[in-house]
Amino acid sequence: MTSGGHNRTKDPIDQTGAPPFSASDFVDDGKYHLLLAASGSVATIKLPNIIQGLAKRTDVSIRVLLTESSANFLQGQSDEQPHIEAIRKYPNVDAIYRDEDEWRTPWTRGAPILHIELRRWAHDMFIVPVSANTLAKLAYGLSDNLLTSVVRAWEVIPPSLVSRESQSADTRFSRRPGLQKVIYIAPAMNTAMWVHPATGEHLDKLVKYGTREGTFPWIEILRPQEKELACGDTGTGAMRDWQEILAKIESCVETHELFP
Amino acid sequence: MTSGGHNRTKDPIDQTGAPPFSASDFVDDGKYHLLLAASGSVATIKLPNIIQGLAKRTDVSIRVLLTESSANFLQGQSDEQPHIEAIRKYPNVDAIYRDEDEWRTPWTRGAPILHIELRRWAHDMFIVPVSANTLAKLAYGLSDNLLTSVVRAWEVIPPSLVSRESQSADTRFSRRPGLQKVIYIAPAMNTAMWVHPATGEHLDKLVKYGTREGTFPWIEILRPQEKELACGDTGTGAMRDWQEILAKIESCVETHELFP
Amino acid sequence: MTSGGHNRTKDPIDQTGAPPFSASDFVDDGKYHLLLAASGSVATIKLPNIIQGLAKRTDVSIRVLLTESSANFLQGQSDEQPHIEAIRKYPNVDAIYRDEDEWRTPWTRGAPILHIELRRWAHDMFIVPVSANTLAKLAYGLSDNLLTSVVRAWEVIPPSLVSRESQSADTRFSRRPGLQKVIYIAPAMNTAMWVHPATGEHLDKLVKYGTREGTFPWIEILRPQEKELACGDTGTGAMRDWQEILAKIESCVETHELFP
Repeated sequence: MTSGGHNRTKDPIDQTGAPPFSASDFVDDGKYHLLLAASGSVATIKLPNIIQGLAKRTDVSIRVLLTESSANFLQGQSDEQPHIEAIRKYPNVDAIYRDEDEWRTPWTRGAPILHIELRRWAHDMFIVPVSANTLAKLAYGLSDNLLTSVVRAWEVIPPSLVSRESQSADTRFSRRPGLQKVIYIAPAMNTAMWVHPATGEHLDKLVKYGTREGTFPWIEILRPQEKELACGDTGTGAMRDWQEILAKIESCVETHELFP
Repeated sequence: MTSGGHNRTKDPIDQTGAPPFSASDFVDDGKYHLLLAASGSVATIKLPNIIQGLAKRTDVSIRVLLTESSANFLQGQSDEQPHIEAIRKYPNVDAIYRDEDEWRTPWTRGAPILHIELRRWAHDMFIVPVSANTLAKLAYGLSDNLLTSVVRAWEVIPPSLVSRESQSADTRFSRRPGLQKVIYIAPAMNTAMWVHPATGEHLDKLVKYGTREGTFPWIEILRPQEKELACGDTGTGAMRDWQEILAKIESCVETHELFP
Repeated sequence: MTSGGHNRTKDPIDQTGAPPFSASDFVDDGKYHLLLAASGSVATIKLPNIIQGLAKRTDVSIRVLLTESSANFLQGQSDEQPHIEAIRKYPNVDAIYRDEDEWRTPWTRGAPILHIELRRWAHDMFIVPVSANTLAKLAYGLSDNLLTSVVRAWEVIPPSLVSRESQSADTRFSRRPGLQKVIYIAPAMNTAMWVHPATGEHLDKLVKYGTREGTFPWIEILRPQEKELACGDTGTGAMRDWQEILAKIESCVETHELFP
C-alpha cells in the first residue's frame, strides 16, 4: 500500500484519527451513491466484474461493504479473485468497509454511527451475493454485523407515512422525495439450500415487511439462475448473471438522474 | 488493579483457580439481587448513571453482565463513559461478567454453569439497553452469549405449573414463592429500526412466550421515548429515561422487601 | 502429535496443500458413513462413549464435526473428557472437523466446498448433543458455522421430487435411492430451557420443513430423558441415554447394509 494522499482519503482503515465518514458531506456531489455489499458465497467473485463494468461512468460513487465470510473469497488467490486492496483502487470505489470499521474510533456522543451514515448516503443498496445465512439473518431482523445493521436500519416504511414525530433525519439527505431507497438482493447458494423451504420463508418474510400498511417495494429479489454451481451441483441457486445485475444498477443510475 | 482481597472477591477475572460463583452462597444475604445487563447500543452509556443512582442503598447487590458490543461503549473514552474497571469499584457492584467468563475454568462434571447460577441468583433482570440485534436473538430463542443464555434459561412458566418432575432446583433458591422473577428490557435503537415491522414482531413474540398456558408476566418492556438520538435522528427509539428505569428498579427492591 | 503417515491421512489439519476432502473418493468404500456432530452442551462428554461403542465394527466410517462451543468440553480436563486429539485416534474416526476447516485453503473455482462434501459423503448425520442455541439456528435456517451449513444444505425434499433441472449432483453419490438421508438430533439443555415455549416452536418448525409437499422424515428427534442435570436441576432436558443413541446408530448401519 502506498502512503500517497489519494489512497488515504479512500481508505477508512488509513483514516486513523480523522473524523469518521459523514453522509451529509456528500449530498451535493452529483453522483448516484451505490452501496454494494457482499456476504459469504462463492458468487462474491463476481463483485469485481460488476465494479469494473461501471468503470467508465463518472456519475457513480461506490462504497463496498464486505462481511468477514465474503472477504475470504477476495484474497488474490486467482485472476478472477483480486485482493480487496486491489479492488479499493478500481475507478469509482470510494471506500471499502468491513465489520471492524463500525467502532474503529471508540464512540463518544455526537460521533457518526457508520451503519446509519451508510443508509443515509446510499441511494440504493445492492447485496451481491446474499448467502443463505445472511438471508436468514435479514429475514429475522438479526443485525450482528455492519451489513445486517444497515439493512435493519433501512426505512422500510417511507418517512412520509411514519408519524411526523418519528421521522428520521434522513429526509434532510433524501434528494428523491417521491422514491424509496431500495435494497436489491441477489441470493446465491447450493441448489439444495435454494429449494429448502426455509429459503422461501425468508424471502416471503422480507417482502412482507414492506406491505404492512400499504405496499412499499423496499426490497427487490434478483432471483438465481440455473447452471452448474461451484460445488458441482446443477440446478437453481447460482447467482443471477452479473451482467444482468450490472444492467439493473445502470437503470437505477438513470432513474436517479431523471428524478434526482 | 490492586492485589487486595476486596477486589479479588469482587472480580471473577481474578478468581483463577477459585471455585466459580455459586448462587446458593448468597441465598441469605438479605439483599435484592439485581442482574443488570447491557447489549450493544449507545444507550449503554446510561448504565453508570443507574448504578450510581443506587449507590446509597445498602440492600442491593448488583451483578453486571456486558455483551462484547456493549463493552465498546465503556472504555473510558469520555467522562460519561467510564472504563469497566472503574464501574467494578462502584458501590454495590459485586461482579461484572463478560462472555469469556462462561467457560473460563474448563468445565467438569459438578462445576456450576454460570448462566444457570446467574438466573438462580437474580431476583430480577434488567437489560438496559437491549439493542435491535439482541432483541431479535431473544425473540427467536437464540442463545449465543452469556446474556442470551441467561434469558433462554429463564423460567417463563412458573415452576408450580410445570409438572412436578420437571421442576428445576431453583425452587430451593426462590425466596418469593408467590412472585415470578421478571426480565425488564429497555429497547434502544435508531428510529427507523424501532418503527421497522421486525421490532413489533420481536416484542410480541417475547410477550407471548409467557401467555401459553395462562398469563405469566415474565418479561416487561420499558418502551423507548422520543428525543433526538445519538445518530442525529429525532423520533422514537431512544432508551427510556434512565431515571425512570432507576425508579422501576427501586420499586422492585421495595416489593422484594415486602414479599421477601 | 506424531509425524507418521497414519495420522496425517486422518487429520485434515495436517493436510496442508493436499487436495481437500472429496466425497466421491469414498463412494465404494463399503462402509456406513456416520457424520457425528456435537454442539455446545455439557452432554458433549458422551460423544467419546458413543464412538468407543462402535470401535469393534469394521463397517463404519466416522467423521466428527465439532462446533467451537462443543470443543470446550473435550480438552482433556477429566477422564470422561478426553482431548480432541485423543478422539482422533479412536477406531473408525476418519476425520474431525472444526469451523476453521471450511475455508482453510483459500477457495478457488473448482475446489470442493466442505459442507457440501460432508452432506454428500454422509449416509446419515447424528447431532449429539444439539444445544438450545444450535436448535434455534437450525429451526430458523441460520448457517453461520460448519455444522449449521451442513444441515442447511441437507436435501429436505428428496431429489426425485424436485424438478429434474434442480436436482443436485448428490444423486451420483447416493447408494440408497429409496432412502432419504436422515438427521438425528439429540437435544440436551437445562430443564427451564427445555420446557420454554421456544423449544417446542423450534422442534415443530424443523419437522415441518419436511412436510410441505408430502411427508419426508428428513429429521428425527431423539427426545431428552428425565434425570438430575449437570447444573443440579432435576427434570427433562438431559440428553437421551448414550447407549440408546448408540443402538439407533447401529440400527441405521444395519438398515444401510440391507439397502445399500
